[in-house]
Amino acid sequence: MRPIRRLIQMDEALEIALGVAQPIERTERVSILEASGRVAAENMVSRMSVPPFARSAMDGYAVRAKDTFGASKLKPVRLRKSQVIYAGSVPEKPVGKGECAEIATGAMLPKGTDATVMVEDTEIDGGAVLINESVYPGQNISKMGEDISPGDKIIKKGEMLNPSKIGALAAVGEQKLEVFAKPIVAVVPSGDEISSLGKRLRPGQVYDINTYTLSSVVNSNGGKARNLGIVNDSVDDIVHVLESNADCDMLVFSGGSSVGERDVMLDVIEKKGRVLFHGVAIKPGKPTLFGTVGRQLVFGMPGYPTACLSNAYILLAPVLRRMARLPEKHPASVVARMSKRVVSTTGRTQFLTVRLEGDVAHPAFKESGAITSMAYADGYIVIPADVDLVERDEKVCVYLL
Amino acid sequence: MRPIRRLIQMDEALEIALGVAQPIERTERVSILEASGRVAAENMVSRMSVPPFARSAMDGYAVRAKDTFGASKLKPVRLRKSQVIYAGSVPEKPVGKGECAEIATGAMLPKGTDATVMVEDTEIDGGAVLINESVYPGQNISKMGEDISPGDKIIKKGEMLNPSKIGALAAVGEQKLEVFAKPIVAVVPSGDEISSLGKRLRPGQVYDINTYTLSSVVNSNGGKARNLGIVNDSVDDIVHVLESNADCDMLVFSGGSSVGERDVMLDVIEKKGRVLFHGVAIKPGKPTLFGTVGRQLVFGMPGYPTACLSNAYILLAPVLRRMARLPEKHPASVVARMSKRVVSTTGRTQFLTVRLEGDVAHPAFKESGAITSMAYADGYIVIPADVDLVERDEKVCVYLL
Repeated sequence: MRPIRRLIQMDEALEIALGVAQPIERTERVSILEASGRVAAENMVSRMSVPPFARSAMDGYAVRAKDTFGASKLKPVRLRKSQVIYAGSVPEKPVGKGECAEIATGAMLPKGTDATVMVEDTEIDGGAVLINESVYPGQNISKMGEDISPGDKIIKKGEMLNPSKIGALAAVGEQKLEVFAKPIVAVVPSGDEISSLGKRLRPGQVYDINTYTLSSVVNSNGGKARNLGIVNDSVDDIVHVLESNADCDMLVFSGGSSVGERDVMLDVIEKKGRVLFHGVAIKPGKPTLFGTVGRQLVFGMPGYPTACLSNAYILLAPVLRRMARLPEKHPASVVARMSKRVVSTTGRTQFLTVRLEGDVAHPAFKESGAITSMAYADGYIVIPADVDLVERDEKVCVYLL
Repeated sequence: MRPIRRLIQMDEALEIALGVAQPIERTERVSILEASGRVAAENMVSRMSVPPFARSAMDGYAVRAKDTFGASKLKPVRLRKSQVIYAGSVPEKPVGKGECAEIATGAMLPKGTDATVMVEDTEIDGGAVLINESVYPGQNISKMGEDISPGDKIIKKGEMLNPSKIGALAAVGEQKLEVFAKPIVAVVPSGDEISSLGKRLRPGQVYDINTYTLSSVVNSNGGKARNLGIVNDSVDDIVHVLESNADCDMLVFSGGSSVGERDVMLDVIEKKGRVLFHGVAIKPGKPTLFGTVGRQLVFGMPGYPTACLSNAYILLAPVLRRMARLPEKHPASVVARMSKRVVSTTGRTQFLTVRLEGDVAHPAFKESGAITSMAYADGYIVIPADVDLVERDEKVCVYLL
């Protein structure tokens, strides 16, 4: 059996992996209806004015502002209503001195007017409109191009799209845009003890969990998981996976990177690429391998499901987000008190799952082979490598799962 | 023109809308690969033990624990290696007194053994294995069913699925589960001034923005947006939309709920159902209508895109999440200092968009008709109805967009 040569600290491992994670350059064209959460791969510059015409910002009366100067409730100005302008229609004629036009919010201002008096500040008096409040030129209207002008850069390359940015694209009539492609991540469980779901387990076998946990983490961090099914834990089979998935940006193997005689991941990466670390000072998840093969990043995760999944949260997800050009994710967290003293090994970061009961955190970790260590937990705390003890009642930050 | 009768406070509006939001009862069957973020509609009870057999939790030697009692580096116990057990294989034979079996992590324990000695605590001495550390019965092994036992409830109805819960389903061989369906939300812009994207604008028209902003908010809060295209602002057309989308759980109209003569949304809801509020003391977004038609919730959002979208964040999203049975969402937030004094109207909650420059928040709001009021902002602050002033340098909580 080959021992892990040198454990590196969690932070160092993350730094190394982030250091070789290249943001994706491939792009694809998507409808703005599907663009939320994607990253723009082009600057989007407006070719039009929004609004494309001066319009009223209020329901009321479009006026020549200077006709209203000095108007008040006690001394209203009387104007003749020359027309009604609905939103979406075109004024019939200009508005002259002493005239006004009844106008709806969003409707085009008629020629001659430069302000709107809100309906609340007016009264009807026979055929005339009494203006009870003076307005200044430009009041209660939007000028043409006030929102967006031709040449305005409404989306910058590299920006993540959210509902309002998508709204800005719609405002200028753009139905599609170029976004960066999602990194393709092959998810490859290996190990003779692993069985596909849907098959009857042979003695000594357990079901494949890591395909499902890893794919969920990949797909919710900007990646596109490709499930390859269970691969034999042999050099030839793993080399074949690498060669036949040359279009993947990342490959995540699980199992087969521990220190057994039959550990082949290390051999393969050493032979075909470069091992960047093997063994991380983290509990659970120590036997983690990371390297590159050509432009591809390769993780060799521990086979045990909780060790694999906790590493996916703390190592894989940040690296994948960098490749996907997404901002760092800060998981929601709450402050809680530990229900009991927890001892941790100095020199190793500990990822400890907890159940929450009000503001009390109970350790939920059973063992790294038990998926319920995480599935029955509400969150996790991270005990840094230089901390050997969390006291009972000590306040801890619980990151929610 | 009909004035809004009575403004209700933001909190009251939200309470009313949440009060009539019924959690969806429809369910659908999905693959666990697509279940992340969905809500379980059934309890999932395990029919098997995980692991299905006692296994080693370490690479090392499976032993009868009492054979090792008293072993130490100075006084090792010598055992005969009777076999090697790889993960996924079945032990050839039981282990007798004075014997041990080399065993890999995850491999089935042979009969007769009840503990594993880690490889680090052993030495090879010719054909024998020297045990340098005593182990207790059960040490470094997982018992059959230690993770999950038959009859264990691994997923509770109503729970949101995350990667680790999906992992628990995989562990017991479940490939699919019943989840609650997503609420179907019809998104219906109306107004003669609105044009579909892809058409040439007629004079007086602007492009449809709300379809895109609303759909993005709906789809990222557990709903399924159905885009109906622009609907005429007439009683008949709106009634037709309601009747031909009877399978929708919510309809979100935008435009046509202001106070113009041509405002028809109010008429329709009054006629066909129940108006629960019309007019919210919030800026922007005052002319917001909400009611029910049969079992359907109906929002009449203001047509102006920023007013519409901010209401979608603060009113529609929480209501939709309740229907989708999702937990409340707490948008990420940062604390910042206001760059300048901001005056707000007492009695109205203000949703003020801001740009962030380091820890300084600059007001970004232009007007509710301008989508760039939000598209160029990084977040927003909420100024409560009883606050009339935010001082320069005052600390504010900025919710990120």
